[in-house]
Amino acid sequence: MAVAVQQMKLISGKNIATPKGFKAVGIHCGLKHKKYDLAVLLSEVPASVAGVFTTNAIQAAPLVVTKEVVQQTGQMQAVIINSGNANACTGKQGMCDALTMQEKTAEQFGIAPNLVGVASTGVIGEKLNMEPLLKGIQQLNPTSTLEGSIQFSQAILTTDTVMKNTTYRTEVDGKEVIIAGTAKGSGMIEPNMATMLGFITTDAKIDSVHLQEALKSITDVTFNSITVDGDTSTNDMVLVLANGLAENKPLSPAHPDWDSFLQTLHAVAQDLAKMIAKDGEGATKLIEVEVDGAVTDAEARKIAKTVVGSPLVKTAVFGCDANWGRVIAAVGYSGASVDPLGITIKIGDTPVVKDGEPVIFSEEQLLHYLKQPEVKIFVGLNKGSGHGIAWGCDLTYDYIQINASYRS
Amino acid sequence: MAVAVQQMKLISGKNIATPKGFKAVGIHCGLKHKKYDLAVLLSEVPASVAGVFTTNAIQAAPLVVTKEVVQQTGQMQAVIINSGNANACTGKQGMCDALTMQEKTAEQFGIAPNLVGVASTGVIGEKLNMEPLLKGIQQLNPTSTLEGSIQFSQAILTTDTVMKNTTYRTEVDGKEVIIAGTAKGSGMIEPNMATMLGFITTDAKIDSVHLQEALKSITDVTFNSITVDGDTSTNDMVLVLANGLAENKPLSPAHPDWDSFLQTLHAVAQDLAKMIAKDGEGATKLIEVEVDGAVTDAEARKIAKTVVGSPLVKTAVFGCDANWGRVIAAVGYSGASVDPLGITIKIGDTPVVKDGEPVIFSEEQLLHYLKQPEVKIFVGLNKGSGHGIAWGCDLTYDYIQINASYRS
Repeated sequence: MAVAVQQMKLISGKNIATPKGFKAVGIHCGLKHKKYDLAVLLSEVPASVAGVFTTNAIQAAPLVVTKEVVQQTGQMQAVIINSGNANACTGKQGMCDALTMQEKTAEQFGIAPNLVGVASTGVIGEKLNMEPLLKGIQQLNPTSTLEGSIQFSQAILTTDTVMKNTTYRTEVDGKEVIIAGTAKGSGMIEPNMATMLGFITTDAKIDSVHLQEALKSITDVTFNSITVDGDTSTNDMVLVLANGLAENKPLSPAHPDWDSFLQTLHAVAQDLAKMIAKDGEGATKLIEVEVDGAVTDAEARKIAKTVVGSPLVKTAVFGCDANWGRVIAAVGYSGASVDPLGITIKIGDTPVVKDGEPVIFSEEQLLHYLKQPEVKIFVGLNKGSGHGIAWGCDLTYDYIQINASYRS
Repeated sequence: MAVAVQQMKLISGKNIATPKGFKAVGIHCGLKHKKYDLAVLLSEVPASVAGVFTTNAIQAAPLVVTKEVVQQTGQMQAVIINSGNANACTGKQGMCDALTMQEKTAEQFGIAPNLVGVASTGVIGEKLNMEPLLKGIQQLNPTSTLEGSIQFSQAILTTDTVMKNTTYRTEVDGKEVIIAGTAKGSGMIEPNMATMLGFITTDAKIDSVHLQEALKSITDVTFNSITVDGDTSTNDMVLVLANGLAENKPLSPAHPDWDSFLQTLHAVAQDLAKMIAKDGEGATKLIEVEVDGAVTDAEARKIAKTVVGSPLVKTAVFGCDANWGRVIAAVGYSGASVDPLGITIKIGDTPVVKDGEPVIFSEEQLLHYLKQPEVKIFVGLNKGSGHGIAWGCDLTYDYIQINASYRS
């Protein structure tokens, strides 16, 4: 993505229903005690769809249903999402329930069932409480207002503490194209796939094959480059719906504005990924680890992810301790090719290791830096030109509290 | 190890210096504020030695020195160990210091330097304070008393809360053979190698090639089957010294008592591994995960290690929450071949999942079970005959506290 793209612009205050023809809403139907727990995203017309899904061998029923829509039709017009229950490991009944959610949503909006995606998030292994859920579906009245978008963003959350929204505009064929995204994350977040719920809408015109290509090309460097706790969920997915109402000529790699589109999609995905990492369960800080000079980009990302996922690095950042020994140890066990004497480490702008040996630094200055809400760690390897970034969060008392008492 | 071996017997109250001809001691030399921080293990005669070492690409200086002794001579007569400083990432000076430790220890006991192993554990990236260390070496006066052994076991500890010792007797050629072990663990504990310090002594007669074979054969199912936090250290090693003073005929796979010896060595290693897991930083419980019916033993161990290493499983056990959804999710992302509908899970003796679906169980009964200091989780896969066990510990507030303030 070396091409400079002037048109891309972050739009503040906007949301998932901003692209032309998209509507959203979230409500409380009764799966949770009080909070919003049911949401729908609807496009006026069928949209091209692309999706990436968890690599966990145990896949929840809604994920199986949604995957089929993506793979078989390449089109989607609505997504129904519940929080509070993951509908995972629920056997045949769970599959039945996911299909019922799909069917009833289709009925409610007068569209074909195979244009409806289904997503669920919450506790594993409990059957869905279908009665309130089905009543809830009949009450869904999505709009293209900011209010509807906000309700949607709230209804998909579990232990998240904040909504995660981002919206950009760009131009394709001189026409305004909007790409907006919303996501939930928090726990059970680990790369090797989406491992979260992410929904991205755009009014760009693009067929599902090229949309999938675009999504895949940015997934590794965004959603797959975050980790909260190394646990990969059974349920998570990222969907991109492109309904074409911007009326541009269909996008493909041959289109002169392909790079603009990709860059904008990348910005949306990266914003969401960083928001998820920053709002990891119990987190007080976003940690960004940048690796340069690895043999390949993939190795650089692998090292960055290993460092940002190390419990010892995470607790050191929580404790504002410039304990670079834990960083270099994680680099060493990442499995990537490294030369110990070629390693450089910086915490913020402060060098702490040069050529594999300690550099004298001001502990006080680093203590001050480590108290900031965003901490950057740089690792230089001097092996090649591979570069990668990964995002994570610190490991805190609150992570333990949240997870030692989640289900009960 | 299917052969029944009558002679093997756990000996209580004994220790690392119990096998004939071994002496040990630990003292405070001044690397730590008050606690013991320097230890030596000495054999009256040169012993056959076998070792397994961390797979971390960043290897500390003492490890490099010790590896050379093991690989070049196959003989060792003394091991000098300091705690409080890992002498890792300390460059040329660090290597120099490790060699000086080796040389001065050799001088102190009138043996050749290439018969001396060196081990260090503690903080990474700080130069060793050689003055108190060298003075300390001159004060070392190892004995074959229980007191000397206890001092040794204490001096190798870092954040460990208890000493880790075990001793067994067996018979080889009708002669008593003792195998004793001591270890330190606590943080930065993760398989794919020793990732800890472990010292095992025996008076059995066995050459270093067969000793290495014996150690390798039991490492995967003992030291490599534990995890505390997934961080693999730069320093850790297990050494076995066999000085031959039991005067048995040399052991090899052809010897009729080979299986007795292996089984006893296995028992020592497994005891130490479980003690390390149980005393993981901040741990309140030992977690044992047994996997049966995997495609291979290696896959079974991989799944067991993934489950026991999952932060969400660890926090659930800490919170006494029978949250099997996290167990099945970890099975799913282990990377092993599983059939979701073939999975059985038990917590203690209580089935919670059968054929991939929830089983109704008494939450109260499981709450009671999960309050015990040792928690067992069984996962059946119904895919093959592969079997494996892994050990770990719960993830608690204390882990955060210990690691958010370790270095400072």
